[in-house]
Amino acid sequence: MAQIDETHDPGLRSWVASANGHPDFPIQNLPLGVFTPPGGGVPRGGVAIGDMVLDLAAAHAAGLFTDEAARAAEAAAGGTLNALFALGAGPRRALRARLSELLAEGGAGRGEAEACLHPAARCALHLPSRIGDYTDFYVGIHHATNVGKQFRPDNPLLPNYKWVPIGYHGRASSVVPSGTPVRRPNGQRKRADEAAPSHGPSRNLDYELELGVWIGPGNALGEPIPIGAAAGHVAGFCLLNDWSARDIQGWEYQPLGPFLAKSFGTTVSPWAVTPEALAPFRAAQPPRPEGDPAPLPYLWDEADQREGALALELEVLLLTPGLRERGLPPHRLALSDARHMYWTAAQIVTHHASNGCNLRPGDLLGTGTISAPGEEGCGSLLETTQGGKKPIRLASGEERRFLEDGDEVLLRARARREGFATIGFGECRGSVLPAPACAAAPGEST
Amino acid sequence: MAQIDETHDPGLRSWVASANGHPDFPIQNLPLGVFTPPGGGVPRGGVAIGDMVLDLAAAHAAGLFTDEAARAAEAAAGGTLNALFALGAGPRRALRARLSELLAEGGAGRGEAEACLHPAARCALHLPSRIGDYTDFYVGIHHATNVGKQFRPDNPLLPNYKWVPIGYHGRASSVVPSGTPVRRPNGQRKRADEAAPSHGPSRNLDYELELGVWIGPGNALGEPIPIGAAAGHVAGFCLLNDWSARDIQGWEYQPLGPFLAKSFGTTVSPWAVTPEALAPFRAAQPPRPEGDPAPLPYLWDEADQREGALALELEVLLLTPGLRERGLPPHRLALSDARHMYWTAAQIVTHHASNGCNLRPGDLLGTGTISAPGEEGCGSLLETTQGGKKPIRLASGEERRFLEDGDEVLLRARARREGFATIGFGECRGSVLPAPACAAAPGEST
Repeated sequence: MAQIDETHDPGLRSWVASANGHPDFPIQNLPLGVFTPPGGGVPRGGVAIGDMVLDLAAAHAAGLFTDEAARAAEAAAGGTLNALFALGAGPRRALRARLSELLAEGGAGRGEAEACLHPAARCALHLPSRIGDYTDFYVGIHHATNVGKQFRPDNPLLPNYKWVPIGYHGRASSVVPSGTPVRRPNGQRKRADEAAPSHGPSRNLDYELELGVWIGPGNALGEPIPIGAAAGHVAGFCLLNDWSARDIQGWEYQPLGPFLAKSFGTTVSPWAVTPEALAPFRAAQPPRPEGDPAPLPYLWDEADQREGALALELEVLLLTPGLRERGLPPHRLALSDARHMYWTAAQIVTHHASNGCNLRPGDLLGTGTISAPGEEGCGSLLETTQGGKKPIRLASGEERRFLEDGDEVLLRARARREGFATIGFGECRGSVLPAPACAAAPGEST
Repeated sequence: MAQIDETHDPGLRSWVASANGHPDFPIQNLPLGVFTPPGGGVPRGGVAIGDMVLDLAAAHAAGLFTDEAARAAEAAAGGTLNALFALGAGPRRALRARLSELLAEGGAGRGEAEACLHPAARCALHLPSRIGDYTDFYVGIHHATNVGKQFRPDNPLLPNYKWVPIGYHGRASSVVPSGTPVRRPNGQRKRADEAAPSHGPSRNLDYELELGVWIGPGNALGEPIPIGAAAGHVAGFCLLNDWSARDIQGWEYQPLGPFLAKSFGTTVSPWAVTPEALAPFRAAQPPRPEGDPAPLPYLWDEADQREGALALELEVLLLTPGLRERGLPPHRLALSDARHMYWTAAQIVTHHASNGCNLRPGDLLGTGTISAPGEEGCGSLLETTQGGKKPIRLASGEERRFLEDGDEVLLRARARREGFATIGFGECRGSVLPAPACAAAPGEST
């Protein structure tokens, strides 16, 4: 499954100077995305290399790719990567091999490739795909436990948790790329001490630290994906902030689950980090605690248990107006790791398709909040502040129970392993805009 | 809002003979859809008239439309109606007026129009739009009450029900047009008397009788739709069967709602019946029972209360292998009416967008099961058989607690009003195929 080759060589350096030692995008990463170049034009596929973006359509037009790599570059030339994701691992791997060669110090074709580079800071970065459907899971067992404890202190996890990779359908239309501001939603809220709900801006706006999974080839309706084949249907990973309005959620979610508490915005990092780039950071799925059931046969695969997990540091930072004014650095809200997923990416893919549900290229799966044990590992304010009961104090003197207007949340991911170049995911950031004005009652002034 | 004009004249007859007296598609209906003609070719927009389909692209090419009607026909020429739905009511109304003129007895242009007709029975009918997102609501208060009673006999409705139009995100990829067989899903099931769940074919497969709403222009992310403008964002209606695996649902749905219990298939009738066609069948929203709260201001609009409901008979029929073998007619499972919606279509549109969530042209909303009071009005077997406890007996001697392989479910809708031509929605039908073989445990034979 996880194949290490010359593209992972930690000694490899690029003639794109900013790539060497780049915290996210050294030549060993080569993530895929969609961008508009500084001069404008139509969105097109690109690859991040250091502080630059390589235009895949232009590089293809310049004749830099042949065979399978050309097929991949051609599929990436349009405004979305759906067609590239549909091709599966073969062409994607060929593209990676060729890009590694092209961008490496001393690589032939540097002149032509250099003409296809744009400074990333001056490009507009888009969603990598047209998302057909977005599904959010709940695989962070520490998160599920922390949240469950607030309702059932002695029995935080529901009886199905260790059997079923719990998930729900999310809203695809409101998934936005990093940097897009998120408007605080209005909605119905009802505190325990209120007799009736009222409609207005959410008072308990939260973030959620998640990984996103971009779907590759997918399956036809009615044809499940066996667990042994599931990894082949993952085209890439991203960071995902599942913004959540806890007060709206608390009032609306019975009996059909979260709805408007989530669908006002979901932020993803724009670069799809490929399974190939992540091959060195594969890890064994941590053994289940004594007494936990084994996964049912349809979710059990030896190779997946052996290397289906990801060793990936996950970090959440908060930048408030007060910190910004005083020139203080962002406050670290959480440090976690993708190894705290109770189910692997392959298991959620297989479970999702187990009823015959068709996954399509470019679909997005969220893992659910990935918290680590302990207060510093909490992937949401619901956990960190215990639903607002224990505010966080910041170096600026500010307090936070939940997010306030003007706050900015940043997610980061970093994969490190002795003997390999560290790679990252780039930023997943978004700041909170005030809620729009509410509709007034008839005859009521706004 | 509901505008009656010469296209609704009950005396209007069409030169398409099968349209006159047609139970669904007389000239007063003119619903929009996407089809492939008998000879093959690419899918394109069409209009149902009696037993025929008029090819909108061909009619447009023949010069049969001008101005706004031409704009609408052009938007309908491609493989989906998303672009037409995006245009809103104006061009759609102009298209309807011109079609009514063209297809009426004595209408000029008959020769050219006749050349654009195909027998519906020989056309392939597709989904009318590429569905960006599908959301399912829960507005059938008798359904919610019937289901709630099985868990909480004394207090069937949860405290939020009469305040919040409850809904959840559904799966867009598995929405299929009428006639597509539906595979029984495999999934995790756990009966109360079982110690652990097992994975296998659903034992409690059910249907749900719903209306679907096709979204028109929609809204930008962050910009709610005021209730007074909501009706303008509805492009059409259809029938919707929200197939449900009750055993999978019961085990998986806590705490995030229905997921794999629903996403294996959702059947819709292929013709979008326009708000214009339904204008004569608008009704006042029934007064809320004494003691129920008034809708919050953002959901309250006088015109919507006055004519936001639909008087529309809804019917469910079951055809089993036994009935078919004996040449017996389908068994009527339920007769209901769209007036049993606790919230109007406008209210669910506004609620959906109230947090800023963007609705896009061609999105689909389901109303949730619309049951009428009484056993004959139950829009699902969960209600009719009380979760399988009271089987239905059929004229063939068969019994049904839930659906069996080979069963076919048909939904029908009919709008009738004194002084107007009756119109219908066409059929929403699907039959149940056996579940695919399950993955075996390692070393286990299948």
